[in-house]
Amino acid sequence: MNVPQRNDRLRRTYGFDEISLSPNGQTLDPSLCDVKTNLGKYQLTTPIIASAMDSVVSPSSISQLADEGVLGVLNLQGLWTRYEDVESRLEDIQLAGDESFVGLMQKLYAAPVQTDLVAKRIEKIKKNNKLVAVSSVPQEVEGLEPIIAEAGANFLFVQSTVTSIKHTGVFPSLDLNKLCKTSKLTIIAGNCSSYKIALELMETGIAGLLVGIGPGAACTSRGVLGVGVPMATAIMDCAEARDEFERQTGKRICVIGDGGIVISGDICKAIACGADAVMIGSPLAKAKNAPGRGYHWGMATPSPVLPRGTRIKVGSVGTYQQIINGPAAFDNGCHNLIGALKTSMGTMGAKNIVEMQKAEIIIAPTILTEGKVYQQSQRLGMGSVK
Amino acid sequence: MNVPQRNDRLRRTYGFDEISLSPNGQTLDPSLCDVKTNLGKYQLTTPIIASAMDSVVSPSSISQLADEGVLGVLNLQGLWTRYEDVESRLEDIQLAGDESFVGLMQKLYAAPVQTDLVAKRIEKIKKNNKLVAVSSVPQEVEGLEPIIAEAGANFLFVQSTVTSIKHTGVFPSLDLNKLCKTSKLTIIAGNCSSYKIALELMETGIAGLLVGIGPGAACTSRGVLGVGVPMATAIMDCAEARDEFERQTGKRICVIGDGGIVISGDICKAIACGADAVMIGSPLAKAKNAPGRGYHWGMATPSPVLPRGTRIKVGSVGTYQQIINGPAAFDNGCHNLIGALKTSMGTMGAKNIVEMQKAEIIIAPTILTEGKVYQQSQRLGMGSVK
Amino acid sequence: MNVPQRNDRLRRTYGFDEISLSPNGQTLDPSLCDVKTNLGKYQLTTPIIASAMDSVVSPSSISQLADEGVLGVLNLQGLWTRYEDVESRLEDIQLAGDESFVGLMQKLYAAPVQTDLVAKRIEKIKKNNKLVAVSSVPQEVEGLEPIIAEAGANFLFVQSTVTSIKHTGVFPSLDLNKLCKTSKLTIIAGNCSSYKIALELMETGIAGLLVGIGPGAACTSRGVLGVGVPMATAIMDCAEARDEFERQTGKRICVIGDGGIVISGDICKAIACGADAVMIGSPLAKAKNAPGRGYHWGMATPSPVLPRGTRIKVGSVGTYQQIINGPAAFDNGCHNLIGALKTSMGTMGAKNIVEMQKAEIIIAPTILTEGKVYQQSQRLGMGSVK
Amino acid sequence: MNVPQRNDRLRRTYGFDEISLSPNGQTLDPSLCDVKTNLGKYQLTTPIIASAMDSVVSPSSISQLADEGVLGVLNLQGLWTRYEDVESRLEDIQLAGDESFVGLMQKLYAAPVQTDLVAKRIEKIKKNNKLVAVSSVPQEVEGLEPIIAEAGANFLFVQSTVTSIKHTGVFPSLDLNKLCKTSKLTIIAGNCSSYKIALELMETGIAGLLVGIGPGAACTSRGVLGVGVPMATAIMDCAEARDEFERQTGKRICVIGDGGIVISGDICKAIACGADAVMIGSPLAKAKNAPGRGYHWGMATPSPVLPRGTRIKVGSVGTYQQIINGPAAFDNGCHNLIGALKTSMGTMGAKNIVEMQKAEIIIAPTILTEGKVYQQSQRLGMGSVK
Repeated sequence: MNVPQRNDRLRRTYGFDEISLSPNGQTLDPSLCDVKTNLGKYQLTTPIIASAMDSVVSPSSISQLADEGVLGVLNLQGLWTRYEDVESRLEDIQLAGDESFVGLMQKLYAAPVQTDLVAKRIEKIKKNNKLVAVSSVPQEVEGLEPIIAEAGANFLFVQSTVTSIKHTGVFPSLDLNKLCKTSKLTIIAGNCSSYKIALELMETGIAGLLVGIGPGAACTSRGVLGVGVPMATAIMDCAEARDEFERQTGKRICVIGDGGIVISGDICKAIACGADAVMIGSPLAKAKNAPGRGYHWGMATPSPVLPRGTRIKVGSVGTYQQIINGPAAFDNGCHNLIGALKTSMGTMGAKNIVEMQKAEIIIAPTILTEGKVYQQSQRLGMGSVK
Repeated sequence: MNVPQRNDRLRRTYGFDEISLSPNGQTLDPSLCDVKTNLGKYQLTTPIIASAMDSVVSPSSISQLADEGVLGVLNLQGLWTRYEDVESRLEDIQLAGDESFVGLMQKLYAAPVQTDLVAKRIEKIKKNNKLVAVSSVPQEVEGLEPIIAEAGANFLFVQSTVTSIKHTGVFPSLDLNKLCKTSKLTIIAGNCSSYKIALELMETGIAGLLVGIGPGAACTSRGVLGVGVPMATAIMDCAEARDEFERQTGKRICVIGDGGIVISGDICKAIACGADAVMIGSPLAKAKNAPGRGYHWGMATPSPVLPRGTRIKVGSVGTYQQIINGPAAFDNGCHNLIGALKTSMGTMGAKNIVEMQKAEIIIAPTILTEGKVYQQSQRLGMGSVK
Repeated sequence: MNVPQRNDRLRRTYGFDEISLSPNGQTLDPSLCDVKTNLGKYQLTTPIIASAMDSVVSPSSISQLADEGVLGVLNLQGLWTRYEDVESRLEDIQLAGDESFVGLMQKLYAAPVQTDLVAKRIEKIKKNNKLVAVSSVPQEVEGLEPIIAEAGANFLFVQSTVTSIKHTGVFPSLDLNKLCKTSKLTIIAGNCSSYKIALELMETGIAGLLVGIGPGAACTSRGVLGVGVPMATAIMDCAEARDEFERQTGKRICVIGDGGIVISGDICKAIACGADAVMIGSPLAKAKNAPGRGYHWGMATPSPVLPRGTRIKVGSVGTYQQIINGPAAFDNGCHNLIGALKTSMGTMGAKNIVEMQKAEIIIAPTILTEGKVYQQSQRLGMGSVK
Repeated sequence: MNVPQRNDRLRRTYGFDEISLSPNGQTLDPSLCDVKTNLGKYQLTTPIIASAMDSVVSPSSISQLADEGVLGVLNLQGLWTRYEDVESRLEDIQLAGDESFVGLMQKLYAAPVQTDLVAKRIEKIKKNNKLVAVSSVPQEVEGLEPIIAEAGANFLFVQSTVTSIKHTGVFPSLDLNKLCKTSKLTIIAGNCSSYKIALELMETGIAGLLVGIGPGAACTSRGVLGVGVPMATAIMDCAEARDEFERQTGKRICVIGDGGIVISGDICKAIACGADAVMIGSPLAKAKNAPGRGYHWGMATPSPVLPRGTRIKVGSVGTYQQIINGPAAFDNGCHNLIGALKTSMGTMGAKNIVEMQKAEIIIAPTILTEGKVYQQSQRLGMGSVK
């Protein structure tokens, strides 16, 4: 009798909490570590990009982020292009109860995107910043791209939960190839999580690839859709595609790990897995003057028929400077993200991002290897023990 | 010295929480996804079947479920065939304390099944619905089948915890072969969880196979009997048997994943594992006007000598429409089960159920890959973070 | 450079919570399942033996256990041979605070064993029971054996945490070979957990082998000593040794799974792993009139220099009859242990203990496969969900 | 299409909580087990070394530790070389709130190390003890070594989070080869966690190697930097390097497991993994008169820019004698560490440390194999169940 085998052929994948970096060579002073990275023709001061989420990026916070070397991306389907007055809506979200939150989100995001507000927001950002980055869902890109380019933006993130180049839709879908050829904007697209799709997307001419399906702190795709790929594996696979694409074409695409990054150690791991940059939401939503006012929510939440983000109370842990460049006043990985990355790179002997991508990774599930310590810490009423 | 090896030959099996779907091809608008499925000669609007449990299906709820495309199955060994007045008993169960619950169940289900009530209930359902489905334990089938058929039912679910075609009993056991040949009813049988038994059961002539031993939310078989097979593996194995049977005979049996389905993502996973339909209990017991009145209990609970179900307080999360077809007002997978399935199918590029059965599955244990996020969310007092 | 490999050669072992039984053949009415087992020349009504622990077995409880088919073993280094009046000491233990418990135990068990009490206790038990079983640590066996035999006992359990036949001690150690040859008592020895030691112990002439190191509910060996072998693997390995010994000699030794058995499903699993019988403590300490009065403690606890048992509040869940033979009033595996075993055997198509030892076992870690359900149940405030 | 494989090539590593010792041979009376070990030309009474942390070792506690056979190491970058009056600073730390703790640490440790205090502390210790051990970070060693040697110390621990022999720094880095050749002190260096680095460090001429990156109870490296290697694997790998080095040179280096040791069972496991000694912090910080006054904190905590230790309230569980040599009054592995080690060695049939290093190790994750028991214990409100 034939024994079925599908069960035995399934591939084991890994999340950040299941891996760790293993120092196994020379070391380096953190001050000698270079964290610059490239996104298309631009060089970014740090590999940190702020997520295109209303709780993370507003026109005014973009300057504060830029001061710390972080590129903030404004969501063009967010509140800032639907309302003239956004602050009062952010306050409503802050004050909403858990029961009424999803309904409120569905109502707030039902207002139409106003193209004049799109231009206005971008121009405002341009006035105060050298680089302007915005995001849009694929189905709105064709209409918005001329306005975005005209208003002076540099980067356009074409972002949906899962992106493929062979989408079958009711309406004709976005032609990424054409967009990359004709637009003067630097195009970043995603999200994806596999080698094959990563390679297909890179062939369209994009400058950056967003990697990450389902792992975000404010994302419930895995519960609602059953869909999601643990981040360590997703980044490793897409980084292999980038390397293969570079071998074939000589062109290096920026792989951006997007989602599931909670503390500084996760940034270090993402880059060791092969990311050239990371896109983070919740760590920045914890800033004292973040737009989310102590809350963080997913951009799929407002879906009128199938909301699948959630709202998280993240509180406030310090200024953008403390969070991004320190000095740290907390010991739990929420402060001095760049300092932690440099120290980790020094520990792993990596002079720059590309060298860090070759760090030795081991499988070491936190919950298994630290179980007793964790339990003990809980018993003793400790804060955080890693 | 010979080293023993049984330990090393054990097969690793997987539950829903250990797998995830990995998008790796084209995508599709959810509105283009077709969720219809076949059960014998009938086509079902959706692949969702409501469990034959007293907390989930009553004669009147069957119409409400049918309005949403869900086939409700009435348990013929439940309260509705033992009592003329069932509502007062459901109220007793609702009001029972945790200590007295099992005793009450044992008493309530000790009343004999009345064959006139069997006919009466079926006729009532038939009056309001096109399709009537009922279930019975194997040992009562021979006596009840003529009454069931006469009363106008379409489907007979022959269901016990573990079914085999070679049962040795004190009394002669049900001849499934004969039943399938002689009955005009569409016969569905189970439960089973292995390739071999699935194949043997399919050869009897059944139209549908119930797959799932021990995983249900209200089932304690694994604790009491040590018996149970994680759902992802069980469905994958039985789906392979279905495919093999179809290769041999040209006949396609409907594999129904039954048990352990808690949120919409589980339905998506069950179908990706190979199920043609799912039978769900607790997600529907959460409907505002579900028979269980905010509670859900297993049908093995009333056993006079070895109760092994339990009662769960599931509360009420919305109407049947919200739960099954949305729009969703919650973001945790309890609303819009069909919308979530279609969105998941679109994400995986599956036009229909058969294509969804080929989706790429990965091993990604929730508790390991999301450990820190989960802990963090708990610390921050969040609701649900997936 | 040579890469070290010890890490990669380590063997993965399994506990009860990591395995499950997978029905994969015919089924059987539970009433047709025979649970009798053999221990030396004696046949036991059920495969359940009550642990030689003061919280589980007293001279008077032995009769009550025997009425239910369970063989109770009196610990000859327990309170009953140290004190004339034991009940007041049991009350002291019951009333001790968590802080003072270990000190009290050390004091209570510092009193010397009185050989006249040994004889007296055995004679008392003999008066009311057909079979008398007692236990002793190896170093006391030589002195006590004549008294035990003279007083009319049938079984002598020679039991220590870890037993080998090549012990190097300050004083000459027990010669098991000689004991088995010269004593008219049926000798059971242990504990052990490996194929090699099991085989060596069987060659001494023992009738039964106790298998289990470190897994007991009241045992802290794993934390204190770092020593312990998960039960499923330990039983599987020793059962292979038993089969090998039977092939070589034609003699079948009774393998007794001892420790880590908490609910009825664990008994089913232990036997499926290859055990001929199980020795259980905590499930019986929960009886209304168990000697422990709602508490359970390990027999290594009183060690004057290195206590490594603990005291557990187990409460009271019912009578010996409810716990052992039902009918069950709870659905969580604490009632009707034998009924559950028979139902499990019927489910697995096993007519007797030897057939049950061939049941299909799968790896299915409870915490991984049932994670979400468990979390959900916690959120909903449920009691126990399996 | 090439399938990426980095994910599949990752190495699985293990922490103490994932392994267990499996008795599989002869046994031995604990009183016959010899726990002495060698560190360079010195023989240590026990394999326990107290961590160079201000919460664990002070000049006066060194004598108390020595009375119990434990070598205490004074941290020369700790409070004792920065302040004349240390006790008032320890009190400040004790009284600090969770919010202000990191800031206080940063301030306290900003004071400069005074070389006259270095000499004074060592001389004071020398007066009362035969052996004096101190530690320093690599960058301060060159300046301090003459003072340390002159003051009469025996051991110098050159210790940083991650040590390599090929460090690239802003300033010239320590030449370990030269230090080992020219200093009359016995040099111990670390920390490291891999076979390759261990071998390179041994070739410099050190007498002892500190093994352990990231696992300590008061260390948050894994969360902040993403860096850390589970202890069981780290020790196994470095012990293989030691054996290889001994084969090549005939010289045996002392491998010291440093970090992640919480209870006595962990010491037994560390040695079974191949350690010749262990360095422990939190178990000794629990002593009634430990310098930390009921608290324990990491020495990386005071970092002005990236603190990555934490403060843990460990409370007080007994005297140094109870903790190290017993007798134990608790059953959870916090008392009688040496008694537990000897008993474990007896159980494993190991006459000395070198034999214990060959004990059979199995993979048996605590959280998986004991899940149900643990949950049950929690439900029942038990203290600790192992």
